[in-house]
Amino acid sequence: MNKKMKLRVGILGATGMVGQNFIRLLNDHPWFEVCYLAASQHSAGKEYEKAVAGRWLVEGEIPEQVKNITVNSVLEVENASNACDFVFSAFNMEKEEIRKLEELYAEKMPVVSNNSAHRFSADVPMIIPEVNPQHLDIIPAQRQNRGWEKGFIVVKPNCSIQSFIPPVYALISAGFPVESLLVTTLQAVSGAGYPGMAAIGMIDNVIPHINGEEEKSEREPLKILGTIQNDKFVDLDSLVLSVSCNRVPVRHGHLASVSLKFRDDQPALEEILNIWSSFEGEPQVLNLPSAPHPPILVRNEVDRPQPAKDREAGNGMAISVGRLRDCPLLDIRFSALSHNTVRGAAGGAILSAELLKAKGYLQPIIQN
Amino acid sequence: MNKKMKLRVGILGATGMVGQNFIRLLNDHPWFEVCYLAASQHSAGKEYEKAVAGRWLVEGEIPEQVKNITVNSVLEVENASNACDFVFSAFNMEKEEIRKLEELYAEKMPVVSNNSAHRFSADVPMIIPEVNPQHLDIIPAQRQNRGWEKGFIVVKPNCSIQSFIPPVYALISAGFPVESLLVTTLQAVSGAGYPGMAAIGMIDNVIPHINGEEEKSEREPLKILGTIQNDKFVDLDSLVLSVSCNRVPVRHGHLASVSLKFRDDQPALEEILNIWSSFEGEPQVLNLPSAPHPPILVRNEVDRPQPAKDREAGNGMAISVGRLRDCPLLDIRFSALSHNTVRGAAGGAILSAELLKAKGYLQPIIQN
Amino acid sequence: MNKKMKLRVGILGATGMVGQNFIRLLNDHPWFEVCYLAASQHSAGKEYEKAVAGRWLVEGEIPEQVKNITVNSVLEVENASNACDFVFSAFNMEKEEIRKLEELYAEKMPVVSNNSAHRFSADVPMIIPEVNPQHLDIIPAQRQNRGWEKGFIVVKPNCSIQSFIPPVYALISAGFPVESLLVTTLQAVSGAGYPGMAAIGMIDNVIPHINGEEEKSEREPLKILGTIQNDKFVDLDSLVLSVSCNRVPVRHGHLASVSLKFRDDQPALEEILNIWSSFEGEPQVLNLPSAPHPPILVRNEVDRPQPAKDREAGNGMAISVGRLRDCPLLDIRFSALSHNTVRGAAGGAILSAELLKAKGYLQPIIQN
Amino acid sequence: MNKKMKLRVGILGATGMVGQNFIRLLNDHPWFEVCYLAASQHSAGKEYEKAVAGRWLVEGEIPEQVKNITVNSVLEVENASNACDFVFSAFNMEKEEIRKLEELYAEKMPVVSNNSAHRFSADVPMIIPEVNPQHLDIIPAQRQNRGWEKGFIVVKPNCSIQSFIPPVYALISAGFPVESLLVTTLQAVSGAGYPGMAAIGMIDNVIPHINGEEEKSEREPLKILGTIQNDKFVDLDSLVLSVSCNRVPVRHGHLASVSLKFRDDQPALEEILNIWSSFEGEPQVLNLPSAPHPPILVRNEVDRPQPAKDREAGNGMAISVGRLRDCPLLDIRFSALSHNTVRGAAGGAILSAELLKAKGYLQPIIQN
Repeated sequence: MNKKMKLRVGILGATGMVGQNFIRLLNDHPWFEVCYLAASQHSAGKEYEKAVAGRWLVEGEIPEQVKNITVNSVLEVENASNACDFVFSAFNMEKEEIRKLEELYAEKMPVVSNNSAHRFSADVPMIIPEVNPQHLDIIPAQRQNRGWEKGFIVVKPNCSIQSFIPPVYALISAGFPVESLLVTTLQAVSGAGYPGMAAIGMIDNVIPHINGEEEKSEREPLKILGTIQNDKFVDLDSLVLSVSCNRVPVRHGHLASVSLKFRDDQPALEEILNIWSSFEGEPQVLNLPSAPHPPILVRNEVDRPQPAKDREAGNGMAISVGRLRDCPLLDIRFSALSHNTVRGAAGGAILSAELLKAKGYLQPIIQN
Repeated sequence: MNKKMKLRVGILGATGMVGQNFIRLLNDHPWFEVCYLAASQHSAGKEYEKAVAGRWLVEGEIPEQVKNITVNSVLEVENASNACDFVFSAFNMEKEEIRKLEELYAEKMPVVSNNSAHRFSADVPMIIPEVNPQHLDIIPAQRQNRGWEKGFIVVKPNCSIQSFIPPVYALISAGFPVESLLVTTLQAVSGAGYPGMAAIGMIDNVIPHINGEEEKSEREPLKILGTIQNDKFVDLDSLVLSVSCNRVPVRHGHLASVSLKFRDDQPALEEILNIWSSFEGEPQVLNLPSAPHPPILVRNEVDRPQPAKDREAGNGMAISVGRLRDCPLLDIRFSALSHNTVRGAAGGAILSAELLKAKGYLQPIIQN
Repeated sequence: MNKKMKLRVGILGATGMVGQNFIRLLNDHPWFEVCYLAASQHSAGKEYEKAVAGRWLVEGEIPEQVKNITVNSVLEVENASNACDFVFSAFNMEKEEIRKLEELYAEKMPVVSNNSAHRFSADVPMIIPEVNPQHLDIIPAQRQNRGWEKGFIVVKPNCSIQSFIPPVYALISAGFPVESLLVTTLQAVSGAGYPGMAAIGMIDNVIPHINGEEEKSEREPLKILGTIQNDKFVDLDSLVLSVSCNRVPVRHGHLASVSLKFRDDQPALEEILNIWSSFEGEPQVLNLPSAPHPPILVRNEVDRPQPAKDREAGNGMAISVGRLRDCPLLDIRFSALSHNTVRGAAGGAILSAELLKAKGYLQPIIQN
Repeated sequence: MNKKMKLRVGILGATGMVGQNFIRLLNDHPWFEVCYLAASQHSAGKEYEKAVAGRWLVEGEIPEQVKNITVNSVLEVENASNACDFVFSAFNMEKEEIRKLEELYAEKMPVVSNNSAHRFSADVPMIIPEVNPQHLDIIPAQRQNRGWEKGFIVVKPNCSIQSFIPPVYALISAGFPVESLLVTTLQAVSGAGYPGMAAIGMIDNVIPHINGEEEKSEREPLKILGTIQNDKFVDLDSLVLSVSCNRVPVRHGHLASVSLKFRDDQPALEEILNIWSSFEGEPQVLNLPSAPHPPILVRNEVDRPQPAKDREAGNGMAISVGRLRDCPLLDIRFSALSHNTVRGAAGGAILSAELLKAKGYLQPIIQN
């Protein structure tokens, strides 16, 4: 695809940590080109480089072609609709305001959102591309419900669940339904955005609480693993999750310690390793640009996965699993890791957009 | 008790991290006075201050009265028997060697051990003083079995379980038997001794594995909560534990994320908090010098206990619990924390020795 | 001194990190009793325990006798004047506002300030009690200038200089004038207050810049080491300082790497160690309650002082020095460490207040 | 250059941290191919993957083509001479043993060493490729002295100086001779190898001492900036360095806080920035495969360079400088950073080998 044919993408909330990651990860993207940036009133009217001066937090430098883009106010929906084929949404407001503003954008263009506002809207798909790509099938119904002709809303789930839901789903899809999950997370500080956690509170410390995270982590998987019935999502009701969340002094990489009970027979550990190693989702089959190969990386070392060593696997898009062993209480237990600001945030949303593009949901909508 | 009447105590393995903590915590102890130090051949013959030059790792300075004690070889049991009323054991060797050497010491004098070698000897009590003080009743049988007139062996359990077993026991002893525990630990680096974990492996990282720790953590509680039958310990067989262990970049303080299922009815959360807050063990009733008051400290803040803020509670001897809430899968869940090198190691052994003294098991055995 | 006779002290900015340290360090103080708390409008009217809920950051619990004190607005000077014999000032505002508000307080009562607003007021003494206690002699002139009968203002210097100025002063006072200092600091995150540095920016990182810190560090020593002439402070003009400041991922404890050139002959290294070891300031001579003995602690180990091991020396009030050796460029070099939130902030101010009390500048001014 | 034409390289000390970095950085190298690995007796005879099981410490996986190479004993010089066109040396022994063993290798093949044993041999060049490439001119004399026909020895300097010597040299080579340098380093833990620093000693701490590091840092630059006279290196005698070294809790990246005095006039700060920005060394002119462009990266942000943000610049081969400002005592001061295990170790040695190749000193010496 040559540059003229790339889809033009806008980033709402471009100055925050997730917005910066969108910009970083979309640099030289083969299908998408960042053409539009929006943020709060405070940044509006500034060149991007100046808007993030002193708070460019992600690796590497600001891409040259983005530096001089003038930042718009996220409230100026009309501006975006003149410049973008679709938008990634990562702006910060009250939840209800986000919900409404994303809907205003969706009237004009597709919205792929990192925000939680629409995660439980009954007609909005919450996507992990390897797990529930078929949930995109609701888009026509969503458009009809909402009266939207050009746009729609697709969201990605919380970062905390993205280390363990893909390997759990791999087992389910291999024919081994799961009855319950008891998970303890050890989450990196970047999950709290910027400035996020205070250094004085994290050096030589662990904080056994993340606001709202356990509720999200226990509820979102049920929708993701659920089905569409009568144009609405219906949760999987046969799975029970208990997720306890801890913040640890790690920059990036959410680790989960997982115990799992199967509904029926337990596959042998060796079989589980095979299921994981050979698992492929639609992103791999379609060979999407950001799809990791393999999506689930099995570590055989006794002390892996580790955030420092494994978070960058598959350019931050692969899930690393290890320490598979029997659980004295449930059936099995294992550790799983994913990069929270790549797979768990901007990267996951980009992979969702690639899936949308491959399925024909994203197209040029503006005139050159 | 004036100084002349203090019991004379020796420390086996005095130069290691646990040995140093014994020395630190016994400084100005009202009942015990450090009179004898032993370590490996390498340190034997040196003054203590020189033996630990460059590797005194614990807070504060080396106590004045210990600095100039000449270190013995831990192999010279006879020397110790001329100088000590009892010994704390924390030396490092092959497990089988430790077992045998501790038995040689026990012929001559009581041994309170931090080592794991005798934890599963059928006639050796493994003590958390607040939990199973009655296990000391096996000592006469142990002496008879072994033919020991002067000594005996008492051990303390692994540090990893000491954050959650006391609060679990408090529930059991209040009439709420526990059926299962699913625990994920976040353990401090000092638990690995010195030098222990490499800094390059712990900065910005978590290691989801601690060698042998899960096995110990799942097995030891069953003995501690078990009973004496026919002069032998019999494990509690009605409790199932699943413990997954992680190493986190924290200096001191093991945190546990615990889910628990009761055998029968679940008490209300409020009642559980009351049980914990009002819990007292024999060390509290006897008002032993190192006994924390209260032994279990309930934190009401939403984000506590934290290692940096709570490990020093009760001079490092109290267990802090918090975040009590319902568990969607088992019955309840909570976080618990204890100081691994104090309550979980030297401090726990000292409290055991105080309990032994209060019960008449420790007495002056050497002539002045 | 019995409790009835203790001076009643108020804390302005009681909810911030320095304010909390004042409260912690004044608990059971033999001379001062915290009777009054003030903070921003946001906290005014709340009980202290509620005002700091979720952000009590210092060690231990909130002292019982302070928990229920109702917080005043820092703007209500009159309230303070009815309740306090003097105040510690640590509130946050624009510098000019602080300057004015502290002056309003000083009309009514003595103010011992942790703020920088008045550090260069020509008639306000900036005190390190061991270094320039004689600077308090300006107080009568200050009162006369300002028309204050009841109060006055005394300030303490920035935390960054308190590790190296006392040992430098000890050399000067022993008859070895100093010509130049080239200092690189490695400063703890607590120096930035709360929330201060973002964890994401400090884990696995160093930041080679602290806003305004180098300017303060190069200028303040010249006043502290200066003299009073015609009722005004005159800087020492014979000393040149170059101070470069870095933030390191350490909770507490500012470390300085110092190179020093003497004006005249260089004393032998052994003599310098003797000067430091035997140094006493007026707080030691007067045996003030918070005075560390010795004020300068010489570490002979090759790798000390270290923040984790030495910051608590003298209850956080002692300066630790070590690594004294020749400098190939200047004359000597050494490392120095002090606890930035104790000696460098609240503790230093309390010691200054003790000095004021001992010299008769603080007295009961309110009626019981 | 196609693969058949690549030079065959062996790595002595292949299992250590530096050896691993050689393997990582030489993966897919356009000129060199790793064909031979040697390590201690303990590893000899094992496949590389097994030899490093549990201690592969560097990023990414072990390259496929290296995994199955059987590790030789480093003592088997003959084996290497049958397999390699040259070797990188990074094995660990007593210094004198290293010296001798490297000489045995040098009889047979060129040796590019990361070790310090030969840094001060009068006929061995110590190379920073951008700074003193002309020092390679001594190789013919070295060979004649030693009677070596096939090989020679070239070494790289200590990692601690590689952040600040290139920018200092850039100034010298632009016509501004330097009279003195006063440097304080903040060095990463990976500089100590593996296991290196204990985590318990580095979390929440700084250690103001690195064994032997200050001596190396003050002496090595004088040789590097020196000249060849009568086939021997003669130190630059007009420069005085004072370097104080600290270990900080950072994984990778040595930061230096530098004050500098020029011998003659001081260029304007703006001119210095221009000199640095436009600096090119021979590796840039020759466009060597590992040469960073630019070699010196000027950061204009007020708080850069930082290890976490800047160590990877130029694939870990660029030096980042920032915070240039006047020094109140010397002339200027600035902060400089380089990646200690890339530029400062394996990467620097590889760049030296590339320079040797480009200059004709490395050629195929073994028969296919």
